[in-house]
Amino acid sequence: MISGIENLFSKNANNLKRSVIRELLKLTNKPEIISFAGGLPAPQTFPKEELTNIVDEVITKDGAKSLQYGATEGDEMLKEEIIKLLEKDGIENLKMENVLPVTASQQALDMCAKIFVNPEDPIILGMPSYVGAIGAFRSYRADMIGVPLQEDGMDMEILEEKVKKIKKEGRKLKFVYVIPDFQNPAGITMSEAKRKKLLELAYKYNFLIIEDSPYRNLRYTGENVPSIYSLDDKGYTVSLYTFSKIFAPGFRLGWIIGPDEIIDKFVVAKQAMDLCTPPFSQRIAAYYMKEGYLKKRIEKNVKLYRKRRKAMLDALEKYMPKRDDISWTKPEGGMFLWLTVPEFVDTEDMFYKAIDENVAYVVGNAFYVDDDGSNTCRLNFSYCSKEKIEEGIKRLSDVVKQEIEEKEVK
Amino acid sequence: MISGIENLFSKNANNLKRSVIRELLKLTNKPEIISFAGGLPAPQTFPKEELTNIVDEVITKDGAKSLQYGATEGDEMLKEEIIKLLEKDGIENLKMENVLPVTASQQALDMCAKIFVNPEDPIILGMPSYVGAIGAFRSYRADMIGVPLQEDGMDMEILEEKVKKIKKEGRKLKFVYVIPDFQNPAGITMSEAKRKKLLELAYKYNFLIIEDSPYRNLRYTGENVPSIYSLDDKGYTVSLYTFSKIFAPGFRLGWIIGPDEIIDKFVVAKQAMDLCTPPFSQRIAAYYMKEGYLKKRIEKNVKLYRKRRKAMLDALEKYMPKRDDISWTKPEGGMFLWLTVPEFVDTEDMFYKAIDENVAYVVGNAFYVDDDGSNTCRLNFSYCSKEKIEEGIKRLSDVVKQEIEEKEVK
Repeated sequence: MISGIENLFSKNANNLKRSVIRELLKLTNKPEIISFAGGLPAPQTFPKEELTNIVDEVITKDGAKSLQYGATEGDEMLKEEIIKLLEKDGIENLKMENVLPVTASQQALDMCAKIFVNPEDPIILGMPSYVGAIGAFRSYRADMIGVPLQEDGMDMEILEEKVKKIKKEGRKLKFVYVIPDFQNPAGITMSEAKRKKLLELAYKYNFLIIEDSPYRNLRYTGENVPSIYSLDDKGYTVSLYTFSKIFAPGFRLGWIIGPDEIIDKFVVAKQAMDLCTPPFSQRIAAYYMKEGYLKKRIEKNVKLYRKRRKAMLDALEKYMPKRDDISWTKPEGGMFLWLTVPEFVDTEDMFYKAIDENVAYVVGNAFYVDDDGSNTCRLNFSYCSKEKIEEGIKRLSDVVKQEIEEKEVK
Repeated sequence: MISGIENLFSKNANNLKRSVIRELLKLTNKPEIISFAGGLPAPQTFPKEELTNIVDEVITKDGAKSLQYGATEGDEMLKEEIIKLLEKDGIENLKMENVLPVTASQQALDMCAKIFVNPEDPIILGMPSYVGAIGAFRSYRADMIGVPLQEDGMDMEILEEKVKKIKKEGRKLKFVYVIPDFQNPAGITMSEAKRKKLLELAYKYNFLIIEDSPYRNLRYTGENVPSIYSLDDKGYTVSLYTFSKIFAPGFRLGWIIGPDEIIDKFVVAKQAMDLCTPPFSQRIAAYYMKEGYLKKRIEKNVKLYRKRRKAMLDALEKYMPKRDDISWTKPEGGMFLWLTVPEFVDTEDMFYKAIDENVAYVVGNAFYVDDDGSNTCRLNFSYCSKEKIEEGIKRLSDVVKQEIEEKEVK
């Protein structure tokens, strides 16, 4: 082995951390464990039969194109389908130059950091926030500043204070990162009023909004709230989408929409990153949309996940100790809810006890950029069956009870 | 549009350039143009029938796994097949921890820069070098230092001088990037003696070797030369491979091998970049290898490309003006050869005239990190039929003749 390897690594590389979630997830692989930890779609939602037909079609009809190198700008057939999909969601006048298919929305997050962030540049995230975004931004040594979430989304007063403070320090805020719909991890949806307020602040203080929308098509209750992109008539928003929750994660496919000038920069960056998003998978996704499978799949997913969400909320109501300092969010969509336990309980300590009782979650602190969130955790309700959800929440409630009793005795 | 967008972009983003090749390639899309410009495999080599069978198998047997998220470390079945393949090429004792599937070897290049390069860090490349590598390294603002290629690979004396100079300046050389087999763009193969010398220098001066091996399985004549990785018993080499030339580019699949400590760093970086290489495509490639299709495909490719290489060499011999200042390389494999025309001919000026005559190539300067190579160009011989190759070289030879006549008259 080469000597002094640490001197060969870049500063960014030396700053990289292994994802806490992924390391803890390794402990949850035993079959007897009921895991609410992963962010996995239910495998029975994977459209195997439709896929077999589509793939045959792609190979036979479009093999020469879909198996070859493709344009960095992405597959035109796919982009047309994406434009049609978003039109139905209130986003009008999108042109081909506003859409870029990417190798999963994780790549989109990486590209946002690459394109906008110099080391130590300030960016703002709601706290808690998606751990994959934190990881991507950290790998470029961004100065991540947290703003707490409220029941209707990011606290706009604290946000404005932080924005002003950054400005006063003579620094340039690059963007505010938000997941407005059924946020990962908290399950919170940002109100329309706050979306408008966020845009107002962006226009006033001249920062970008990165709107991450992986779950937008998975609403089980309540009224649709317009996307920030659709409310923005000045081009301050870049929005990220993924096929992982509405098709299958195994393709690693997502897309970005934004102003041409920004998408063009993404394209040039992407050329150097992977030349193009896999043309074979892009074409598969294009047919999947074109032939109406996506719409049907979303309907089925919503039906299934709606039941599982209810099963988890019912089980929490039934088994969790009734105390003022125990609460959980009631997400209107998505895949996660957020459990808060008494402040004196550390969910990282409790994690190993939960594993002993064959139930798993993700420790809340993983979603913070500081030491906050130590009495919180994220629970996924999309992966397990209703029966497992009930049994798992029962086990988890027992673990929480024991933990409280132990700490209170001390 | 947000005002002052250039202030929002990172320094790295402002340093990004559009790939010259990709911009020029757009001019070559007309059907009447015979293009030697792209680096495209012949579409008839795509294994459409085998693929249809394999994909059905992957969906039916392994759908729940291959359509789900996967480990960043990669698909184990694929890694086992890769280890077996490399064993036959003299690389022994590879463990699972030494292999990482990536989203095309372009991602591997991007990761090499991300992991090793701080802005202004020196790295060394043979000149000319693969334009995609230059693009990836530039996007991290590496200080790229060129060392000229000779007929048997990089000039080792100049290399040692440059290495000493960097050391004297108190700077840390991060790596030397080489494409030892049938180099892109020059078609040159590095001799065994030079591979050993390069390792000696790496051991002496403590730098890494990035060995890019996209064409290694495509040899049409001459004797196999051991890979640098197989000659290195001290762990100073990281080698990059791709499925693009031996399966199909449309999957965007490649892999890296290297010492565990370095692969581990790649894994952590990749978590933040795209979580994992598409599990669906990885499993397809695994079956493709396991069922013996890869071996057969390589044999067919070699047979086809060997004929096309000969067609191009014969046509150059037949049509190109006979002059001491016109020459071309005679690659023993790969997909490209390198044409040098008289110094007073600028291949970028000539490019537009060639397009008018319906023949295209890539200007040589695109493969340099300075203004060198203006009288060179890269010709691809894998994509066009023998007949088109002869006709295209005839056209190109006429363009070169006219260009020489015009300049000599002046």
